[in-house]
Amino acid sequence: LAPLADLAKQRGVQVYHLNIGQPDIPSPPEFFEGLRRYQEQVVAYEPSRGNLALCKSWSRSMNRSLQLETDQNHFVITAGASEAILFSIMAVTDPGDEILVFDPSYANYLGFAAMAGITLVGIPTTIQSGFALPSIDEIATRITPRTKAVLVCSPNNPTGTLMKRAEMERLLELARSRGLFIISDEAYREFVYDGATPVSFLHLEPRNPALIITDSLSKRYSLCGARIGTVISVHDEVRAAVQRMASARLAVSSIEQVAAAYMLDTIPADFLSKALQEYQQRRDLLVRGLEAIPGSIVVRPQGAFYTIVELPVRSGDEFAEFMLREFDLNGRTTFVAPGSGFHVAAGGGKRQVRVAYVLALDELRGALETLAAGVEAFQRKYGA
Amino acid sequence: LAPLADLAKQRGVQVYHLNIGQPDIPSPPEFFEGLRRYQEQVVAYEPSRGNLALCKSWSRSMNRSLQLETDQNHFVITAGASEAILFSIMAVTDPGDEILVFDPSYANYLGFAAMAGITLVGIPTTIQSGFALPSIDEIATRITPRTKAVLVCSPNNPTGTLMKRAEMERLLELARSRGLFIISDEAYREFVYDGATPVSFLHLEPRNPALIITDSLSKRYSLCGARIGTVISVHDEVRAAVQRMASARLAVSSIEQVAAAYMLDTIPADFLSKALQEYQQRRDLLVRGLEAIPGSIVVRPQGAFYTIVELPVRSGDEFAEFMLREFDLNGRTTFVAPGSGFHVAAGGGKRQVRVAYVLALDELRGALETLAAGVEAFQRKYGA
Repeated sequence: LAPLADLAKQRGVQVYHLNIGQPDIPSPPEFFEGLRRYQEQVVAYEPSRGNLALCKSWSRSMNRSLQLETDQNHFVITAGASEAILFSIMAVTDPGDEILVFDPSYANYLGFAAMAGITLVGIPTTIQSGFALPSIDEIATRITPRTKAVLVCSPNNPTGTLMKRAEMERLLELARSRGLFIISDEAYREFVYDGATPVSFLHLEPRNPALIITDSLSKRYSLCGARIGTVISVHDEVRAAVQRMASARLAVSSIEQVAAAYMLDTIPADFLSKALQEYQQRRDLLVRGLEAIPGSIVVRPQGAFYTIVELPVRSGDEFAEFMLREFDLNGRTTFVAPGSGFHVAAGGGKRQVRVAYVLALDELRGALETLAAGVEAFQRKYGA
Repeated sequence: LAPLADLAKQRGVQVYHLNIGQPDIPSPPEFFEGLRRYQEQVVAYEPSRGNLALCKSWSRSMNRSLQLETDQNHFVITAGASEAILFSIMAVTDPGDEILVFDPSYANYLGFAAMAGITLVGIPTTIQSGFALPSIDEIATRITPRTKAVLVCSPNNPTGTLMKRAEMERLLELARSRGLFIISDEAYREFVYDGATPVSFLHLEPRNPALIITDSLSKRYSLCGARIGTVISVHDEVRAAVQRMASARLAVSSIEQVAAAYMLDTIPADFLSKALQEYQQRRDLLVRGLEAIPGSIVVRPQGAFYTIVELPVRSGDEFAEFMLREFDLNGRTTFVAPGSGFHVAAGGGKRQVRVAYVLALDELRGALETLAAGVEAFQRKYGA
């Protein structure tokens, strides 16, 4: 759809981007100060495992803010969470193996699965039940001899839901009894609202070798373009497998690693709390705006900065395209991501779209107004 | 061996690093100026295909310096040549497929092959014949229905040899007649000595869709830690496959892309010619030093900054380990890479080591002196 958005812009239409999780919060001054402090004469390779100061800062930062006891030696730095998830998948599978995910889930997991030559098995959750996880028995029916891991993300992209602690415990128990890994994508870990406390799978069992945590600075610190992520695992063989892939690609960009290490050591705790306050206001505005669309189904997001909404349209794909191709309200339109793209199983999320609330309140207000008018226009043209 | 080198340093031994291709030439001031010019408030994702200004600068820079007519739209920016080669391999193979390489070849190709689930078929070349390519008939005998590509590197890492233009033409002809891709790793393209002219496979057939060029700024501009590479292909489907993988990992680091684009537009042509002059002096010193070791076999490198040398020792692996574990000459030792690591086929490169001449002349002199003394000491202890 991105080319359609470009065409709309060429026609002079202003496009509100609710389609992508690119935060608009300024990156921390401490990161830019860290950049200025990079004074090497030669921009040389960092160790393939990652800059050691960054491993240390990241571990300390998690331990401080989450009351954990991670060990810097269990960190491998990666090019964003993307590479962390890809390496984690490849570390625990052979081509032809299977990994369980809960539909809807992050669209790019499919891309990583394709690169690893494995199959994602999508276990459906429904908007009507607030995207709650199915029972452990139901999950267990999807396990085959080729199943190697469950890949989870809480707070969730795309639904904005949080996994309950009891759900996490049951998943851990299932992993133990069936010999599976849990790959926990914690890129949004700190993005929890209404006074909730961030929960890592490491809080449950900090030394469980079945746990592979993937993390990223992208969302938490508005540093998507820095491409700094990590794999955390106490499992020596998993880490060795990740390290082999890290060695093959030599290293992650040096300058951002040095800057990120400085940032994690110096950033005030209120950077995140201020950002969260802002996102929570946006969340509240978004939910009100979406609920005001007659016939919509809205699940109030508790975390991250996304939600999946069901709209009174026959197809989320067609609607998203319609918004870019032919609709505008006073020269403006809203770009949303079709819900179908977040489903492994065919036919899921048909009347749904994903919305990222990464715009300032005024912009978001305009985006919602335009979206509501678009739904009406689409219904007039194609029926509800 | 890296942990052994760390232990040697802890014992107070100075280690000359001839084991890794990390240039010591200062990175260009224009790159650092480009870094300073990065003034975004939010370090946001660049397009997954790469920063468009960088695609344009890179294409223009190649066209200017190599008299080519590349099209910026055929570039996909990657995290170094590593990702470029991995994506190229994955774009043209399915798990179980085969790619031909010439032994000895770059050790990390094996890591990429493992990630792609494919088999590298190593076609031996020998130090006695100056690592010349075998005849096309001999190469053709290695082709099976699963062979999808030939992966080549000229100037070569690890041998320092150049492919002759006639050899390149015969390979292209073979690729055409057998329906194979040629993946040409051109990271060292400009590193040619004795007045030779850099040759890209694109010089032979600029619009041949079987050609996939991978390139990198790492060696050419002493920017290994920037992790900026590219895949260049006129083949729409190959590029689409590369683009799908690029989309899955979202983007390459933004800041280095912006800085690299500025650098390629502004760097004076003599940056490279000065670096080459320096490397050629080192090459000459290196060859003299290695030839002075009685019983060595030396192939004078014509390009890149590596050579494979056969030493009068029973095992290159044991010798490299010996140098780090127990040898020193006046508190110094030399770290070389065992030749066996550069062979796909088992048993290759047994008495050989790879040497990278990335040290200043004085350092290199010390490294060679230490190396020669190490060979003698090894022979005294273990026999020749």
